[in-house]
Amino acid sequence: MIQKSSAGNWLYGLALTLLLPMLAQAAEPLESWKDGSSKASIMAFVEAVTRDGSTDFVAPAERIAVFDNDGTLWSEQPGYFQVLFAFDEVRRLAPEHPEWKEQQPFKAVLENDHQALAAAGMDGLMKIVGATHTGITTEAFSANAKAWLAKARHPKSSRPYTEMVFQPMLELLDYLRANGFKTYIVSGGEVAFMRTFAEEVYGIPPEQVIGTTFVTQFQPGDGNPSILRTPRLAHNDDGPGKPQSIDSIIGRRPVLAFGNSDGDLQMLQWTAAGKGKRFMGLVHHTDSKREWAYDRQSKIGKLDKALDEANAKGWTVVDMASEWSRIYPFDARP
Amino acid sequence: MIQKSSAGNWLYGLALTLLLPMLAQAAEPLESWKDGSSKASIMAFVEAVTRDGSTDFVAPAERIAVFDNDGTLWSEQPGYFQVLFAFDEVRRLAPEHPEWKEQQPFKAVLENDHQALAAAGMDGLMKIVGATHTGITTEAFSANAKAWLAKARHPKSSRPYTEMVFQPMLELLDYLRANGFKTYIVSGGEVAFMRTFAEEVYGIPPEQVIGTTFVTQFQPGDGNPSILRTPRLAHNDDGPGKPQSIDSIIGRRPVLAFGNSDGDLQMLQWTAAGKGKRFMGLVHHTDSKREWAYDRQSKIGKLDKALDEANAKGWTVVDMASEWSRIYPFDARP
Repeated sequence: MIQKSSAGNWLYGLALTLLLPMLAQAAEPLESWKDGSSKASIMAFVEAVTRDGSTDFVAPAERIAVFDNDGTLWSEQPGYFQVLFAFDEVRRLAPEHPEWKEQQPFKAVLENDHQALAAAGMDGLMKIVGATHTGITTEAFSANAKAWLAKARHPKSSRPYTEMVFQPMLELLDYLRANGFKTYIVSGGEVAFMRTFAEEVYGIPPEQVIGTTFVTQFQPGDGNPSILRTPRLAHNDDGPGKPQSIDSIIGRRPVLAFGNSDGDLQMLQWTAAGKGKRFMGLVHHTDSKREWAYDRQSKIGKLDKALDEANAKGWTVVDMASEWSRIYPFDARP
Repeated sequence: MIQKSSAGNWLYGLALTLLLPMLAQAAEPLESWKDGSSKASIMAFVEAVTRDGSTDFVAPAERIAVFDNDGTLWSEQPGYFQVLFAFDEVRRLAPEHPEWKEQQPFKAVLENDHQALAAAGMDGLMKIVGATHTGITTEAFSANAKAWLAKARHPKSSRPYTEMVFQPMLELLDYLRANGFKTYIVSGGEVAFMRTFAEEVYGIPPEQVIGTTFVTQFQPGDGNPSILRTPRLAHNDDGPGKPQSIDSIIGRRPVLAFGNSDGDLQMLQWTAAGKGKRFMGLVHHTDSKREWAYDRQSKIGKLDKALDEANAKGWTVVDMASEWSRIYPFDARP
């Protein structure tokens, strides 16, 4: 018999306060996912690993979900957004580097010379990334990235890059977190760049963002220490680098992994090989009208071997064109 | 007016279940800390950064607390426990390596020859660590470490190493977490070794353990991928390596840092230089009776420059002998 004391009322109110947000969230999960095989496979997986007494139950602490970023959580055309940032930084910094006018690959960027840029290849790109991402402190770099994200606009949509994120994936992140999953980014993108927007845009805090890293140097300063970014690559978080960083930084094997390209294959394989029920997903860029359509022949986000393996093993392949009712948050609700 | 429905009863029960552990925990925080300057400084700091409306308030997401492990959370005498593990592993693996009988530094370990071991120096130690920590998969290594921790006993106490942890620091970790802090280990110890016991012993999950790492290789296997540990050091998480890994892996500056040696100085400096209120603490090993007494002259856990800086800057220096009523969980309550 419960006493109708004021303590009881207060506890009842507290319980309601705690429960109502959960009920509200449960109302319409995955709103922008059309009913179909991908939505069904996601919901069946989450139900199986979270239901008490399920033979596939996974303890909350083990509910690690990892997501690639470029092409999986946001678009990556006409070029990786971080590369477009690097090009804009070359233009911004050009007055301090008059020599760039005659020096490749910087000259190509300043003259918008696509042919010369392509000729400079990966070495050229690394020079551009080095000049715009390193030789400065971690705090200065974050400030530069934030300033760019605040004013830069995507060449096709004229929207901020942080709006070029996939609404269905935002809903998936929310849905997983509401079911006790810890969501991580594991991306070939450079980690400090992604951290400048991941918390606000994806709800993923800095400590759950894993990416490519540069070697840094601790500088004691005069009572005001700083951390300098050097041009030497510490870890390339692509391909086999993804399961390596997951092991090194998370120290647990994910139960769910989502990617969109061959650079995600090893992360998906590593996830799949764990004991118990797992979920492996690929975003397949099939929508030339609302986004872009590309896979096996693309230079950016090439999806070939991973698509074969996904098909052979029954992983979930999301057909953007037919399975997503909206692509971006700014798209009208259907 | 609340309805006495069964839903109400259930909600009331839920609220009690949620609240009772908090009330129990709040009863006696830091029980093994004697009233004194260290306990007072910890409690004043936590109160200041967690109280709503405080000018020093720190949002829960930013409440990052970092702890060294060896000498800060557990003992490190008569040698780093992980080094004692490596010696035991040499003995265990010796039958598979008959050549070790004649080969230094392994011969020295097998013959318990302290002089030859000292002569082998850091190079010799690295050979021993390489032979016992690398050349195997991450899963095999974790199994080895767990097996050792289950049966090995400390030479002085004859207790499992996982009982040689500091009861006051366990209470501090609990107290911080109860106040919304996220507790991390940032240690010179190798990360996979620490992860085998950190969750059970300290309540710190694998993804909040940061340490020294080896370069790994992803091995696709035949549908059964594994991660191989190679002998090449990826990151030495000591001295300046600590703020570097904090920046790279956590991506936020801690508001509280605790260490015990000069290897923690840069982590403390990095923490201290952040904006707003910070807490920097050192465990000072002053108790030759219940633990060990050592500082400026010690080869293990040398505390010299960091002690000077702590004294100069008013950081908290914990006098184990006078400020801790118990050292280990197995010590009787006073």
